[in-house]
Amino acid sequence: MPDITIVTEADLRKTITLDHEIVDTIEAAFVALATKPVAMPPIMRLDIPEHRGEVDVKSAYVPGFSGFAIKVSPGFFDNPKLGLPSVNGLMMLLSSTTGLVEALFLDNGYLTDVRTAAAGAVAARHLAREDASVAAILGAGVQAKLQLEALTLVRPIREARIWARNAEKASACARDLSERLGIKVEAMPGPDAKEAVTGADVIVTTTPAELPILRADWLEPGQHVTAMGSDAEHKNEVEPAAIARADLYVADSLAQTRRLGELHHAIAAGIAADDQSFAELGAIAAGTLAGRSSEGQITLCDLTGTGVQDTAIATLAFSRVARAGSGTKFST
Amino acid sequence: MPDITIVTEADLRKTITLDHEIVDTIEAAFVALATKPVAMPPIMRLDIPEHRGEVDVKSAYVPGFSGFAIKVSPGFFDNPKLGLPSVNGLMMLLSSTTGLVEALFLDNGYLTDVRTAAAGAVAARHLAREDASVAAILGAGVQAKLQLEALTLVRPIREARIWARNAEKASACARDLSERLGIKVEAMPGPDAKEAVTGADVIVTTTPAELPILRADWLEPGQHVTAMGSDAEHKNEVEPAAIARADLYVADSLAQTRRLGELHHAIAAGIAADDQSFAELGAIAAGTLAGRSSEGQITLCDLTGTGVQDTAIATLAFSRVARAGSGTKFST
Repeated sequence: MPDITIVTEADLRKTITLDHEIVDTIEAAFVALATKPVAMPPIMRLDIPEHRGEVDVKSAYVPGFSGFAIKVSPGFFDNPKLGLPSVNGLMMLLSSTTGLVEALFLDNGYLTDVRTAAAGAVAARHLAREDASVAAILGAGVQAKLQLEALTLVRPIREARIWARNAEKASACARDLSERLGIKVEAMPGPDAKEAVTGADVIVTTTPAELPILRADWLEPGQHVTAMGSDAEHKNEVEPAAIARADLYVADSLAQTRRLGELHHAIAAGIAADDQSFAELGAIAAGTLAGRSSEGQITLCDLTGTGVQDTAIATLAFSRVARAGSGTKFST
Repeated sequence: MPDITIVTEADLRKTITLDHEIVDTIEAAFVALATKPVAMPPIMRLDIPEHRGEVDVKSAYVPGFSGFAIKVSPGFFDNPKLGLPSVNGLMMLLSSTTGLVEALFLDNGYLTDVRTAAAGAVAARHLAREDASVAAILGAGVQAKLQLEALTLVRPIREARIWARNAEKASACARDLSERLGIKVEAMPGPDAKEAVTGADVIVTTTPAELPILRADWLEPGQHVTAMGSDAEHKNEVEPAAIARADLYVADSLAQTRRLGELHHAIAAGIAADDQSFAELGAIAAGTLAGRSSEGQITLCDLTGTGVQDTAIATLAFSRVARAGSGTKFST
């Protein structure tokens, strides 16, 4: 039996950081999702209410990728009381040809963070104006940082604003990003994000908000919005009217955004029909459908997170780890 | 973050072999399934037809167990052409309290083999006559051997017969078992299993048969049958009429045997109704329902394999591995 490579989060942080190859790999995954017979079974969900715990298991097979990922994502919301993180988990990579387990990534969610940010870069690459230079990031967590970093890979970003409900966290996030990226990053105070988004070229919402934090009437011609926070029925970052106000609405997976994303709330509000057809990011990346077609369009991309992204990043991580000779090999 | 313990198949084979504690643990899992609010989500299934591959992911949370298992079982049926086993996979154990991954068992299906055999012992303990001494095993594979070994733990077995379509494999299996268990084990030749089951006290069917290999009119008063081969819609070891001929039919999980087990074929044949009530093994083990109530009854237990057995064996394996100081600890 071939060996299994076991890779820790520390190993992965050395091998996998946001770069163009990762963005291209995630783009290839979206193209496959839109153009190939991808097999993506429904998410397996186990609830343990006694401990406020839940576990999601996701998987997707993408023709053309040598492996497929199975991701186990537990969330146990009393963990912080025990000094432990709420969210952790691991990803495994199995050979598409033999089903043998090739690698176990003990990543505590790190690969998910990176593939989620890379999807933001893919969205901006096809939907933001070529000359987009001012970014507004709503939220001040891990994704706020990674999404701005992702934007700098694909657009000439020279200025960014950070808005978050917690002004202190916004300031700390802005300082950190300014140092790390070497561009002007400012925290925007205020009870809402209006000032932060006014005049921005790209807006990224990265929060777990359950009530909209981005209003439709704030949007200006030429802006692009990526909403990546909503990955569950109860989450909602963007006012439903913004879907109608946008000239182009794009989903990572329409099947998912209709159920989990911003589109879900627009349908519930009667602003979109539940059988209404919209573009998917993969079809735009593949060139089958048009992305931004004029300077003045408002575009909006709704990201809920897909299993094909996990398969793509796990495959890439495995080849990089093998090349670097990192990880630990186990014979079974 | 606490360490993750990684345990190979070789480690497990040293720590986990069929014994009374394992049988008791699997019995406790069945009792829990029948009496507690177990959470057992539907099996996640991914098909990769290009490579004749399939992957099943199973999980179950059992109140009272400190951990819960997630099991990944790939089957890729062209693997033997590449010199690789068709079936492999791994099991992971997560803490029921925190969701943190505690252990990864790179077992290639070994823990499944053991927990499946232990279920046979639980069935015989509650359904076979106390003085059952002659066993007939149909099939000559891994489970044929383990099921006979399991029977010897709970009943005074002094003689066994092995029948299989392939007479050579049956002979080799009988020789091996005779040596290992120190009892008389004979291969029974012949086109069918009639001679093997005639006069036997316990019959265990352990094959992937898709057409019945055990006929209803062969059954004699006082016999117990455990049918453990059928775990999918197309598998069928026992003639449907045998379900009607048995005085007591018992399922590991009625929800599963109605869909996947021998009961499924009896329902399809119109011999059982699809809403007909039958006993579950856990209710009998718990004492809520009666098991065998007379010497002359014919009993039949239909085992399809349940996620609670995986959770039980993974929890036990983890505590034994910790006690033995085996496995390899990884900090993440």
